[in-house]
Amino acid sequence: MARRITLYDTTLRDGSQGEGINFSLQDKLLVTRRLDELGIDLIEGGYPLSNPKDAEYFRAARELDLKHARIAAFGMTRRKGIDPSRDVGLRALVEALTPVVTVVGKSWDLHATEVLEVSLEENLAMIADSVAFLKAAAHRPELVYDAEHFFDGYRHNPDYALRTIHAAAEAGANWIVLCDTNGGALPEQVARAVAAVRAALPATVGLGIHTHNDGDLAVANTLAAVLNGADQVQGTINGIGERCGNVDLCSVIANLALKYDGFDLLQPGRLAKLTEVSRYVYEIANLNLRNGQAFVGPSAFAHKGGMHVHGVRKVASSYEHINPELVGNERRVLVSELSGKSNIAEKMKEYRLDSDPALMAKVLDTVQDLENQGWQFEAAEASFVLLVEKLAGRFRPHFECLSYRVAVVGERGAGFAPVTEATVKVKVGEVVEFTVSEGDGPVNALDSALRKALEPHFPVLAEMRLVDFKVRVINERAATAARVRVVIESRDHDALWGTIGVSENMIDASWQALVDAFEHKLAKEDRRSGLVSASTSTSTLAPLPARPAAASPAVST
Amino acid sequence: MARRITLYDTTLRDGSQGEGINFSLQDKLLVTRRLDELGIDLIEGGYPLSNPKDAEYFRAARELDLKHARIAAFGMTRRKGIDPSRDVGLRALVEALTPVVTVVGKSWDLHATEVLEVSLEENLAMIADSVAFLKAAAHRPELVYDAEHFFDGYRHNPDYALRTIHAAAEAGANWIVLCDTNGGALPEQVARAVAAVRAALPATVGLGIHTHNDGDLAVANTLAAVLNGADQVQGTINGIGERCGNVDLCSVIANLALKYDGFDLLQPGRLAKLTEVSRYVYEIANLNLRNGQAFVGPSAFAHKGGMHVHGVRKVASSYEHINPELVGNERRVLVSELSGKSNIAEKMKEYRLDSDPALMAKVLDTVQDLENQGWQFEAAEASFVLLVEKLAGRFRPHFECLSYRVAVVGERGAGFAPVTEATVKVKVGEVVEFTVSEGDGPVNALDSALRKALEPHFPVLAEMRLVDFKVRVINERAATAARVRVVIESRDHDALWGTIGVSENMIDASWQALVDAFEHKLAKEDRRSGLVSASTSTSTLAPLPARPAAASPAVST
Repeated sequence: MARRITLYDTTLRDGSQGEGINFSLQDKLLVTRRLDELGIDLIEGGYPLSNPKDAEYFRAARELDLKHARIAAFGMTRRKGIDPSRDVGLRALVEALTPVVTVVGKSWDLHATEVLEVSLEENLAMIADSVAFLKAAAHRPELVYDAEHFFDGYRHNPDYALRTIHAAAEAGANWIVLCDTNGGALPEQVARAVAAVRAALPATVGLGIHTHNDGDLAVANTLAAVLNGADQVQGTINGIGERCGNVDLCSVIANLALKYDGFDLLQPGRLAKLTEVSRYVYEIANLNLRNGQAFVGPSAFAHKGGMHVHGVRKVASSYEHINPELVGNERRVLVSELSGKSNIAEKMKEYRLDSDPALMAKVLDTVQDLENQGWQFEAAEASFVLLVEKLAGRFRPHFECLSYRVAVVGERGAGFAPVTEATVKVKVGEVVEFTVSEGDGPVNALDSALRKALEPHFPVLAEMRLVDFKVRVINERAATAARVRVVIESRDHDALWGTIGVSENMIDASWQALVDAFEHKLAKEDRRSGLVSASTSTSTLAPLPARPAAASPAVST
Repeated sequence: MARRITLYDTTLRDGSQGEGINFSLQDKLLVTRRLDELGIDLIEGGYPLSNPKDAEYFRAARELDLKHARIAAFGMTRRKGIDPSRDVGLRALVEALTPVVTVVGKSWDLHATEVLEVSLEENLAMIADSVAFLKAAAHRPELVYDAEHFFDGYRHNPDYALRTIHAAAEAGANWIVLCDTNGGALPEQVARAVAAVRAALPATVGLGIHTHNDGDLAVANTLAAVLNGADQVQGTINGIGERCGNVDLCSVIANLALKYDGFDLLQPGRLAKLTEVSRYVYEIANLNLRNGQAFVGPSAFAHKGGMHVHGVRKVASSYEHINPELVGNERRVLVSELSGKSNIAEKMKEYRLDSDPALMAKVLDTVQDLENQGWQFEAAEASFVLLVEKLAGRFRPHFECLSYRVAVVGERGAGFAPVTEATVKVKVGEVVEFTVSEGDGPVNALDSALRKALEPHFPVLAEMRLVDFKVRVINERAATAARVRVVIESRDHDALWGTIGVSENMIDASWQALVDAFEHKLAKEDRRSGLVSASTSTSTLAPLPARPAAASPAVST
């Protein structure tokens, strides 16, 4: 019988320790939903003591109605010399009311005495007290004990390292997770230590592994642990995290699912979502994809050498270690840029768009062209749907853009708080609307002016608002003359949608994405009122908070 | 006695198969020299048959006067049904006149019959003939036989896979290198196969390993091979290469040198050049650094979490798997919201900034305030240094900003290709400069206008240029009225620096970051010319390529 492996994702907690990574509350909720859809078992959402955003996350996550995953809150053992009930960190952990709590403690004697400055006995008491206190909470959480620096500790003082995990296990921990916190362990060391711990722990206590990639061995270390008895794997999507990152769960999942027989992890059909989830996390974290990333990277199945491409054509499996479709990725033949076909077909099916072969071919060509210029439709599916409708000749624009103009003026006398003004000229039917609005920035001013022009014609636009925009430089080498990609996320009472614009000018890219956002909302309303029959998928979200009052005065034309 | 490990670098041949990688002849010669200085034993410089550039390289490489490395030329076994002396590929290999030749042949029966379309016996003859022909060349080259797809072949038909390498060994190959061409092998498979081959081969024949990273296990596979008897390691600097890349020699070298006792590889003192060589290859290959790269990445020893920073200061080794200086890298303490006091102190020490307690407290307060408003100094240390100088009352601005103005106009007639114009009014000493410039976007236009105003006063600014800018929305909840963070990266001939701006207006945030970038360059020049004594650390870089012509016409006031 296959051995069940529990997947524990810490993208939102340990992953957010990575340089330049910062998730908003909204980002965290979006990622949580995607991880749940992928089939992750446990999602570590944050460290409630560390900042108010995390505490708010745990409240909001309870409303998410997850299908499969359970949320974990992370914290540390109690401080020295106090009762757990008086420890603010432990209290914050209890107050998060998550089904799972994870508490980290010291396994390495040196860390107890030199960093915490406590006796070895007090460290054991801190572990036992904290675990017992959390297990006794009214909502009876499942408890994961993370044994920090376990492998270093085990090398220096194996007896003491084992005593720390026994302290946690005896106090009621459901899981003991061995952490290679510094990321420098070797696979053979991990294998030996995990086997020893597994033999020492009662079978009722689960064993897990948490590795970092400082030695470029995180995946191998995780596999070595699983082969020697670990049943839980902790990691992050794309291996984001401090220094060299945590182990990349994408690689771990793909290896365990495809290279071995005996493991039960994702539900059937879920593995093919892996590439999509990886790219989604990059988008949300505003990071560039890593082309050569194993399994899910855009180059992972890209063939360049003529010999190889020839071979792939003859015997596909002979030049690829797995079939790329298994992980939702695809083969790319670089000479002819043949990418995308199955993705496009899949996407059109998903949106129930007409998929006759001629249209498919046209969409494929256009998307490939646009991707070469820097478009990316992963987080901008509303723009993709509009594009298909345009190519199919079915797009009915609700308004026509004649011109826009943005001026930003910063002056010293005003403390450089700049004044931004946007004018928009659009045609709705036969009426030309020419509006002007101020804003806190160019996108805000353009949004206000466009709204002012369109709301008299389409009152339903009052339901919609922009919730996020992201700007990414595509070809950094060209510096300030580089091409820029803007992705705007909008929502109304029941859906959230992304649109995209690409230009050398970030104002122009923003304008393109704004126009698509408005057109998407109007098309959606047409379908709702039965004007059009096609349907677009929308991700359902918690009810929309009341729309805030306009941030800046609107100036009439 | 330590076992000698031969390092075989194929950055210039297999590495150049990576997507977007293209080395000029000059690039190849520069990299060759650096690899030699690092202490690489064998440098595979190219595939003489594949293009004239490679043939030219081998001629030029003979003039390089290398201290240590030997150059290898790469080719394939003869084509089917002909005599080796009539095979153009083998003749090109001989004509390269390199001290080492490497020839690749098929180990997997499927590849012989399905891809080459030859009988299994003919494949063996092709291997034996080719090796014997090359060994008989007048210059008597050392011969490396690369057994392509060895691990796949060995899994499917171990007897035949072994026969192919015996054919090469009996014909006179000095080395048999087992290749995981598809990159999908697991460490336990590699360990078993290498041990079996080592037992089967005479001791006079060397055994090597060549892995790819498709399963995210290339380093582990290489280490497993070395532990089981391989004495030669093939790989590339930074793991560049087709699909997910070859094994990263930086990780392999660092692991073998620092994590094990029994191996003899680089000469004393050379390991500390590893980071420099890694960055040099990125520069030459025109690739961005990978921040989280093991051992040599800029984030590999970067500490963000407050708890960790506190720990690092107490017991440096306790939060780092190795001392970063051993590989020529350095510890970095990131200034971030999670860290606080110990981070700031560390950073001020690093920049040798005055650290009296009153200033420290002031800096800490200010940074915390700014971070709450969305500043992040991790990638903007130049702005951090300017901030400390301002708080210390020592900042001497080189110019005073009076006003700026940006206008973007998009019109339908022009296909919405917008026109961007920026005006800048600054005061330098008693002179007011008022300039205007067009640009491809607002940042480009502001940069051009500011340059035009300042270069007449500070000609040294011509050395500097912007290389990247990043825009991030901080509090998305407020939608387009959200606060925006802009980070700009600039460089001159010997350094790279980041600056930051935060505002509700992305143009204003860009302006702030631009002004800091210019002020940093001017302060740096003052220190260089001895006007000021404080020092800022700069990351050393390869010489700056000639500055490209301005991307857009500059319009005179």
